[in-house]
Amino acid sequence: MWADLAPVGRNPDTKGYRRFAWTGADADCRTWFQEQAEARGLTYETDRNGNQWAWLGDPAAGDAVVTGSHLDSVPEGGAFDGPLGVVSSFAALDELRRRGAEFARPLAITNFGDEEGARFGLACVGSRLTAGQLTKAQAYELRDADGISLPQAMEAAGYDPAAIGPDPERLARVGAFVELHVEQGRALDLTGDAVGIASAIWPHGRWRFDFRGEANHAGTTRLADRRDPMLTYAETVLAARREAELAGAVATFGKISVEPNGVNAIPSLVRGWLDSRAADETTLDTVTSGIEKAARAYADRHGIDLTVVRESFTPVVEFGHALRDEIAALLGGRAPLLGTGAGHDAGILSASIPTAMLFVRNPTGVSHSPAEYAAEDDCVAGVLALADVLEGLACR
Amino acid sequence: MWADLAPVGRNPDTKGYRRFAWTGADADCRTWFQEQAEARGLTYETDRNGNQWAWLGDPAAGDAVVTGSHLDSVPEGGAFDGPLGVVSSFAALDELRRRGAEFARPLAITNFGDEEGARFGLACVGSRLTAGQLTKAQAYELRDADGISLPQAMEAAGYDPAAIGPDPERLARVGAFVELHVEQGRALDLTGDAVGIASAIWPHGRWRFDFRGEANHAGTTRLADRRDPMLTYAETVLAARREAELAGAVATFGKISVEPNGVNAIPSLVRGWLDSRAADETTLDTVTSGIEKAARAYADRHGIDLTVVRESFTPVVEFGHALRDEIAALLGGRAPLLGTGAGHDAGILSASIPTAMLFVRNPTGVSHSPAEYAAEDDCVAGVLALADVLEGLACR
Repeated sequence: MWADLAPVGRNPDTKGYRRFAWTGADADCRTWFQEQAEARGLTYETDRNGNQWAWLGDPAAGDAVVTGSHLDSVPEGGAFDGPLGVVSSFAALDELRRRGAEFARPLAITNFGDEEGARFGLACVGSRLTAGQLTKAQAYELRDADGISLPQAMEAAGYDPAAIGPDPERLARVGAFVELHVEQGRALDLTGDAVGIASAIWPHGRWRFDFRGEANHAGTTRLADRRDPMLTYAETVLAARREAELAGAVATFGKISVEPNGVNAIPSLVRGWLDSRAADETTLDTVTSGIEKAARAYADRHGIDLTVVRESFTPVVEFGHALRDEIAALLGGRAPLLGTGAGHDAGILSASIPTAMLFVRNPTGVSHSPAEYAAEDDCVAGVLALADVLEGLACR
Repeated sequence: MWADLAPVGRNPDTKGYRRFAWTGADADCRTWFQEQAEARGLTYETDRNGNQWAWLGDPAAGDAVVTGSHLDSVPEGGAFDGPLGVVSSFAALDELRRRGAEFARPLAITNFGDEEGARFGLACVGSRLTAGQLTKAQAYELRDADGISLPQAMEAAGYDPAAIGPDPERLARVGAFVELHVEQGRALDLTGDAVGIASAIWPHGRWRFDFRGEANHAGTTRLADRRDPMLTYAETVLAARREAELAGAVATFGKISVEPNGVNAIPSLVRGWLDSRAADETTLDTVTSGIEKAARAYADRHGIDLTVVRESFTPVVEFGHALRDEIAALLGGRAPLLGTGAGHDAGILSASIPTAMLFVRNPTGVSHSPAEYAAEDDCVAGVLALADVLEGLACR
C-alpha cells in the first residue's frame, strides 16, 4: 500500500515531496485513495468540498466513526505527515477484519483536501469549508503564486467549485473523528512511548512585519545616511528567538520578501512573516507583543516605518475530554497525553464534532522535510492502537 | 530633450524606472539617442557590442574626445543615474556650438549598453566587452531571470550577437573618455560644490553566503532542536554593519533567497549576498574577512553549515592623474576631487584609455531609487563644466 503511494510527487534528487492541492501529484494521491477504498469493498465518494470518503456501512445510519488524515504536502515535505494517517486507517480496517470484528456503527476513512495550504496559503481548506469556518466567497479569493484561483484549480482538477460550502448534514452523521498523525516534535521520543494521545493544539498565529526604509545604492550611501530595513529585520529575528526562549514558546521567521532584492541595493522594503505558538493564549500574546515592541524600538532607531498585520490566529483547541478519556482507556494507559504546536483537520473539526488525535513517535522530531521519519515498529504500533480505538468505538 | 526621454520605462505609480537591457524600454531609449544624434547632424552608429556612438568629425582621424554614459536602469531606478550623463553630453555640444567652438579633434557622444546589469546580473556588459574584460563565451553564458540568454535578448532586439567581442581598433581612436554622472553619495552636498571630479572608484566585491540548516516545522520543533539558518543570517547582517562602521567602509546585505520560504517552515537554506566596498583593498579585505569570521562563529554555534563564495571582485580604479589634473585646471579649481563606491563604464574603460569622470551634486545622496535627484541649477552647472572640459580638450 505504501509502495504505490511513495513515488507520487517525490523529487528524485532530494527525496522531498511536493503534493500541492489540485495538482497532478494530488490527483495521483486521490486515485490511490479511491483504489484502496474499492479494493476493500468500501463505498467511495467525494463531498462537495472535494474531500474523499470511503464508507463501510450506511452513512445515513448516523453516529459514524471516522478516521483519516490528508495526502497533500508542504514543498519538499516528508513521507509521513498526512499519508501515515490515511495508510494507517486502511491498515487498521484490515486488522479489524483479521480480528473478525463486527461493526455496530458505520465507519469511514477520509482524505481531507489541501490540509497544508502550501498552494493557496491557507491551511485545512477542505475541513474549514466543510465545518463552515471558511466561506465560499473567501475560498474564491484564494490564489496561488501563479495567480490561479482556488475555483480555477478545482475545476481544472475535475471538481465543481460552485458546490463548495458548509456541509452540516454530513458532519451531523459523524459521531467521532480520530486522526492519526506522525508526531512533529520529540515528546514521545523523550517519554519512550510509540504512540500518544493529543491533549490540545497550541494557539498559534501568523504576523506579517513590513519594514519600510529607503532604497539606495549599496556602494555609495554612507552608513550614517542609510535607512536600511534589513538591519531592523535582523534585530527582530533575534528578538523573536529571545522572547520565545524566555516564555517556553516557539517563534520563527521562515518566510521573507525583499524589494528590490538587488545585490547592490539597500532594500526599500523587507517583509518578514512571524509564526508563533505557545501552550496558552496569554503566553502567546506575551511573546508576540514582546517581539513587536522590540521591533518598534529598532525601527525607530533606524528611521524605519514598521507595520505589523496579524494574518491569521487560531485559538487553543482543547480536544473533548470524553472522547479523549475513552480512547486513553481503550489503549490501556499505554499512550501519554501531549500537546502539539501544529494545526490539523482534527483541530478544525473539533469545533463541530467530537474529535481526537493519535501521534506516532518521530525519533528526531523533524517534519515538513524529507528527513521526517517514523520507525516501522512504531508505525505498526500506531496501526494497532488505531485498530483498538476503532474496535472499541465502532464494534460490538 | 529630457521631456521625450522621461516617460520611457517609467512606472506611473511609483515613478520608478525599469529600463533593462534589450527590452522595449531600452529600445525606446536607443531610438531617442539616435534621434538626438541625427537632429544635431552627428554620424550615428552602433558598435559590435551594441553601444551607441554619435560622431562629430572623422573617427578615423584618431585621438577623439568621447563623452557619454548609459540609459539603462536598475529596477525601480531614478531618472538621473545614466541619462544625466547622456543628456548633458548633447547639451554640452549645443553649448559649444553656441560659443562658436572650432573642433580640433573628433568628438563622440556614447550610450554604453547594459551598464547596470539589472537583467543579466553583470554590470557594464557593453564596456566590458569592448575593453576585452568580458569574453564572448562568458557573455553567451549570461541569462536573465526568465532563462533568456544575452545573445537571445540581443537578437530579439535586432542586434547581431555573433559580432560581440573586444574592439581594440575602436578604443585606439579614443584619446580621452569623460563620463558625467549624478553623484551617488553626499560628498558634494557636504563640500557645497555643484560639480566634482572623480579621483578613484573604490574596490568592491560581492560575496554569497549560503547558510544551510535543517528544514523543520515551525510550530512543533523545540527551540533546542532547531538548526535555523535565519538566526545565523540575522547575526551576520548585524556583524556586517559593525565591521563596516569600524573600518569606515560600506557593507550591505540587500538580496536574499530562502528555502523553502514558508511561513510555518524553519528554513533549510538562507542565501544572502554581501556587497562591500572600501577606499582601499586592504581595508576591504579587513571588513569582509571580519564579517566571514563572525558568520563562521555564529554558524558553528547553531549547527549551521556555511559556504562563502566571492562572486565578483573589482580592484581599485585610480583615474589617470594627467587627464584628471588637466580637467581640474580647465574647471579652474571649482570642482573638488572625490572617490566613489559605484562602478561605472568609465572605470572599465580606464584600463584601456585615458578616462575621467565628473559628478553632479545629489542633495540627499539617494540613488537607484525614484527619489534620486539633482537640482536644475546643478544640472546646468554640470553641462557648463562638461562644455568647458570638452572645449579645453577638443577645440582650438
